[in-house]
Amino acid sequence: MANKNPLLSQMSSDNSSFVDFIENKLMKIIKAYQEKHSRPVYTMSFGYTSHPLPATAVKAMSDYSLGLGEAETYTSYEPVTGNNELKQALTNRYQQKFTVALDVDEIFITDGAQLICSAIQELFSQDSVIALQDPGYPAFIEGIKLTGRRYLSLPCYEENGFIPKPPKEKVDILCLCFPNNPTGQSATFEQLQAFVDYALENQAVIIFDATYQSFISTENIPRSIYEIEGAKKCAIEISSFSKEASFTGLRVGWCIIPKTLMIKDSKENELHKMWSMQHQIKYWGPSNIAQRGALALLSEEGQQESQAIVDYYLQNAKLLRQGLKSLGLRCFGAVDNPYLWVKVIAEMDEWEFFEYLMHHTGLVGTPGSMFGLAGTGYLRLSAFGSREEIVRAMNNLPASFPDEIG
Amino acid sequence: MANKNPLLSQMSSDNSSFVDFIENKLMKIIKAYQEKHSRPVYTMSFGYTSHPLPATAVKAMSDYSLGLGEAETYTSYEPVTGNNELKQALTNRYQQKFTVALDVDEIFITDGAQLICSAIQELFSQDSVIALQDPGYPAFIEGIKLTGRRYLSLPCYEENGFIPKPPKEKVDILCLCFPNNPTGQSATFEQLQAFVDYALENQAVIIFDATYQSFISTENIPRSIYEIEGAKKCAIEISSFSKEASFTGLRVGWCIIPKTLMIKDSKENELHKMWSMQHQIKYWGPSNIAQRGALALLSEEGQQESQAIVDYYLQNAKLLRQGLKSLGLRCFGAVDNPYLWVKVIAEMDEWEFFEYLMHHTGLVGTPGSMFGLAGTGYLRLSAFGSREEIVRAMNNLPASFPDEIG
Repeated sequence: MANKNPLLSQMSSDNSSFVDFIENKLMKIIKAYQEKHSRPVYTMSFGYTSHPLPATAVKAMSDYSLGLGEAETYTSYEPVTGNNELKQALTNRYQQKFTVALDVDEIFITDGAQLICSAIQELFSQDSVIALQDPGYPAFIEGIKLTGRRYLSLPCYEENGFIPKPPKEKVDILCLCFPNNPTGQSATFEQLQAFVDYALENQAVIIFDATYQSFISTENIPRSIYEIEGAKKCAIEISSFSKEASFTGLRVGWCIIPKTLMIKDSKENELHKMWSMQHQIKYWGPSNIAQRGALALLSEEGQQESQAIVDYYLQNAKLLRQGLKSLGLRCFGAVDNPYLWVKVIAEMDEWEFFEYLMHHTGLVGTPGSMFGLAGTGYLRLSAFGSREEIVRAMNNLPASFPDEIG
Repeated sequence: MANKNPLLSQMSSDNSSFVDFIENKLMKIIKAYQEKHSRPVYTMSFGYTSHPLPATAVKAMSDYSLGLGEAETYTSYEPVTGNNELKQALTNRYQQKFTVALDVDEIFITDGAQLICSAIQELFSQDSVIALQDPGYPAFIEGIKLTGRRYLSLPCYEENGFIPKPPKEKVDILCLCFPNNPTGQSATFEQLQAFVDYALENQAVIIFDATYQSFISTENIPRSIYEIEGAKKCAIEISSFSKEASFTGLRVGWCIIPKTLMIKDSKENELHKMWSMQHQIKYWGPSNIAQRGALALLSEEGQQESQAIVDYYLQNAKLLRQGLKSLGLRCFGAVDNPYLWVKVIAEMDEWEFFEYLMHHTGLVGTPGSMFGLAGTGYLRLSAFGSREEIVRAMNNLPASFPDEIG
């Protein structure tokens, strides 16, 4: 992994990122298939959202853009850690939805969850040991690989319900994502409490990716790590408007570093202050227009519109799951979650299954190994496409797979 | 500087950033002064732009926002290294304005120059030694301090015309900014050629901050480092729409990594590929709306409107310079550059002068030591405020400073 040139940083140019895989390699495979076969292909490999933005956000951003052209309403830089009203609106949402009390200063408005999942690792020393879910959202492992840090995988497989236990070894950082991308699972209060207890006992920090928190409607499933007792002493939460409001192109998320967060021998409020510094130097946050859009989302009307978008993607996920189950495939996730995690047919390896599914149904997923070794043998399908496409794909499903395999 | 806690990264929470200094400390001093004295104060310490955005950009962003609310025109993620049309338009501008030929793939659309000035340093190993201008734009030195790397200062003082020579020692990275913030100076072809020659000879890389390149109208002053022979083999260029088009709040800039850039023992195209990776993992670029605004700026009409904004700020700078010279102050910069670099009156230290100037003229600058030790004894004034305010301030100047000092 490490680069051999002493002047260059750890990650070698021989590596390839997940985005590169998606933007280039996977698209090439699909294109090559389409050139050979004249059948419809439904690409569900990506997190590209398709539902138009909420009208409140659109109006807020269009109006704000127009105002930037007038001397009286022109604005320059936003405050570096984010628009104060937006931070206040987020603390209100945490209070109202999750009964979690946050200080406005504990929130940092970010350019989205992806970059912070790796950037937040800069807080910690090179010697820190990290544990992370496998399979998992690639940003965590890519952040680790950039620095060449030591890490251990917490495998998520069918036998543990895709929810690992805290490691037996002592680690310094735990990277967790619930509702999970890619396995589609949510953790219970008890399961998350075990991680928080581990962190408190070992003076470790949890980096919790809560990007899909708004997709949870099932009762008694935690949506924020701070719903767990003790978490404000040991956890950082990262989230985003990208998926819950189709904001992927706008690049607005947030990150919470409680002032009460402590690690071994750290001074009071030290992690919060250190991240403030990193953020002020390297991450100036999103455009003022996008921040106004996010602020509009957090109005009562905006929240209703966001909920309608979440419901739309969840209904997509349900249709996908029903369709693939009707073909006899083993399906996980897609409840409280926009991702369907499909088990590969036993006789095949995952790339064979990838092609088989594309050939017989037109559906294109992402091979599970792209999310980590323990994801091998699964395929992820995303429900962020349009309803029309998903309905069309489901209507075109065969009654069954060819006998010789199915 | 280094943090003593083995689990935390280098930079200690005891440090404070330049943004923190501006958003908090300096504002407090001004507020305290205003509470005590009922005189007008003209704050010119910051880079906050004031001229409204070009109409072409405003229209493009407003229209694009509205389109995001419709299914037919909704878009999700931009390509991770930036909108292709925008990258193409930038290569056209480099060709037309600077006669510099770039490949579209060599351009990365970024969230602005500030963050990339420090983030780009991640390309290089911890052992790399960096040389940088002192005084200089704080992002470079803050990026260095975040990692605890070794660096050496290239002092810029009146005797060398505020333009240093390449170091005598061997370094791996040279951080340069021309037109310079804060000293207001531009380097000639010969002066930049010396740096490029040094870099080629020592297999070093130049990180060139060209944020103010559009402010140069004097003939025969290079605006891009790639106007210098050999630079495409050794230089990275960073720039931004922030100041030339009042885009500070929009967060859109760019960074150029030539494919021909090589350092010691590096493979062909290796730095470009490595930055691609970093960018894809940690820097997904600006919002789609802001990118459309930038694209509109690069139209013929948009370029004319940008030029009018540049001219406006340059005229502000000229008025500032005339006014302060009329008081007998030694002034530098403010030609081809929006910053005025004012020498402190000999009998005072820079904070005394800061207060003296505020008290007798209402003008608030930034003490030069905030940009590096060699900046001590100067004050930076920014011309990004409104014409009305600058005219008012200049009209309120006393005929001379009180006799006992002036």
